Amino acid sequence: MRERELIAAIGSVLGAGADAGQIVRGPGDDAAVVRARGYAVTSIDTLVDGVHFRFGQLTPSEIGHRAMASALSDLAAMACDPGEAYIALCLPDTLDHANALELTRGAHAVCGRHGATIAGGDVSSSETLTVTVTVVGWAEDPGTLVGRDGARPGDLVAVTGALGGAGAGLALLDDPATGVALQARTRAELHRRFARPEPRFGAARALRELGATAMIDVSDGIAADARHLAGASGVGLQLTLAELPRDEGVDAVAAALGADPTAFAATAGEDYELCACLPASAPALLAADPELAARLGPISWIGLVRDGHVGLSFTDGDAAGLRGFEHGHG
Amino acid sequence: MRERELIAAIGSVLGAGADAGQIVRGPGDDAAVVRARGYAVTSIDTLVDGVHFRFGQLTPSEIGHRAMASALSDLAAMACDPGEAYIALCLPDTLDHANALELTRGAHAVCGRHGATIAGGDVSSSETLTVTVTVVGWAEDPGTLVGRDGARPGDLVAVTGALGGAGAGLALLDDPATGVALQARTRAELHRRFARPEPRFGAARALRELGATAMIDVSDGIAADARHLAGASGVGLQLTLAELPRDEGVDAVAAALGADPTAFAATAGEDYELCACLPASAPALLAADPELAARLGPISWIGLVRDGHVGLSFTDGDAAGLRGFEHGHG
Repeated sequence: MRERELIAAIGSVLGAGADAGQIVRGPGDDAAVVRARGYAVTSIDTLVDGVHFRFGQLTPSEIGHRAMASALSDLAAMACDPGEAYIALCLPDTLDHANALELTRGAHAVCGRHGATIAGGDVSSSETLTVTVTVVGWAEDPGTLVGRDGARPGDLVAVTGALGGAGAGLALLDDPATGVALQARTRAELHRRFARPEPRFGAARALRELGATAMIDVSDGIAADARHLAGASGVGLQLTLAELPRDEGVDAVAAALGADPTAFAATAGEDYELCACLPASAPALLAADPELAARLGPISWIGLVRDGHVGLSFTDGDAAGLRGFEHGHG
Repeated sequence: MRERELIAAIGSVLGAGADAGQIVRGPGDDAAVVRARGYAVTSIDTLVDGVHFRFGQLTPSEIGHRAMASALSDLAAMACDPGEAYIALCLPDTLDHANALELTRGAHAVCGRHGATIAGGDVSSSETLTVTVTVVGWAEDPGTLVGRDGARPGDLVAVTGALGGAGAGLALLDDPATGVALQARTRAELHRRFARPEPRFGAARALRELGATAMIDVSDGIAADARHLAGASGVGLQLTLAELPRDEGVDAVAAALGADPTAFAATAGEDYELCACLPASAPALLAADPELAARLGPISWIGLVRDGHVGLSFTDGDAAGLRGFEHGHG
């Protein structure tokens, strides 16, 4: 792999955008230079072939999309403004330049839709296709950021969108027969949920305006992610499994896998929706503000924050039952 | 590999430092939050087992050290202040937790010596041990940063320290017989040059004070890196091979490999010294300022910046002769 040539080609994919706006120096020097705002919000995230995806199941463009979207989702979960991304590609010799460029284009397109810019990168050879993305967001005031640690007893727990779709999309890739009962449109939508998630920046801003006290993105499955949030906040989260919103087609895929649909939606992960804790007044505020409700999009009220035992419990099931359920490549 | 346990253990290696100073939120949330200064200077860099090092040749601590030092070296080459680092580990199942922690300690120690802090990270499984580090430095004024693109005809070309030591250290790892003529102390020093390079922040600041117009760190070998600098600046660099400073023991290792010592030092790379272009007045300024000279450390004047043909030439050799020489794993 002639890395210099590939780096030049990647530079032309990224184009003039990398020199625009806040970016004083883009790719091509020892480091990128970006005009800062008050606080930098930074996350690093890796996708590994055979662990987080399988090359051949996803197109290069989908791999790039997914790597960038999953990294940006961590910024959305902080409710900051997206800024720059830095992408490190480890490419097997069997992956040709055209595929590497398609991967870059997939990542670049996600950035473009969300106002982020790829400002730097690195290309290495490796036996294992690996994509590491560092994303940087910005906030003028750290008080506007929403961590995992602010949930208070009495808060409500909400989740955006619907769950289980990404897991169902992966199940369809692993065994297409799993989706035999689905319409082509539903099947395509479940694939998109896995292959092309979108970070929820708009919903995150709306949740912050509603007074969100704590927030996390749903990457490991809401059963695991809500537990992380509970631990960081030192509270108990009591969820009602029956309230978990499920993507269309999830029940049919879960049935084909012999799994409980609710447990599947709670544990399959990778949906990149947002789980947030909000003051009890939030539903009334939302009902009174249709513009805010439109920006927030679909939301489900799935539980309560409790004093006492730190961790996760369910009003209509038990965590132990969920623990037995495993899904995903890694 | 139980990633959550390892992440917790890594958190305790990093310790309270990650919550100190500019860092508002360290590891443990969706993203780190850092109080910004005027301009963020950011670079991402990856080391891959079998490409940039071989597990077993280096200890886990040395691998972590080298990954962090090579990333920080890009910040030194911009002459900014080091800030935060974010480290993504892709770990084979065969690598135990103790080794992963040793690797983290190696990276952490380099940060500590240079005033940088590991503020976040990611742990994944992979068949290939891979360490990606994103480093962020800061500058109040972008005019104080030194890019690759400012060299002007009439400038002098300088390099810090000595070259070839890292390449010789790698040659000793690949074939210990290569160093049969060396004293144990020299052999150990060459190993250190490969396994534990140090970013040259102090020298970078001194070079900036001397008026450096362009700078790059020597990662690919000065023959390649000087060519990058010449291209970015749109000038010609004319170097004198005989002036290239060589680490003690490099000549003996090159002889054992049947290589020309100068060509070896110019192409072996990974020394992480700095190559800078400076106004012609710099040597006199330096001679008049012993304090600055002490902070700069060893420096060699190795050539001139010329008008006309953009690229690299040698007063006492030819670039084509160097092109035939290849060294290193990848």
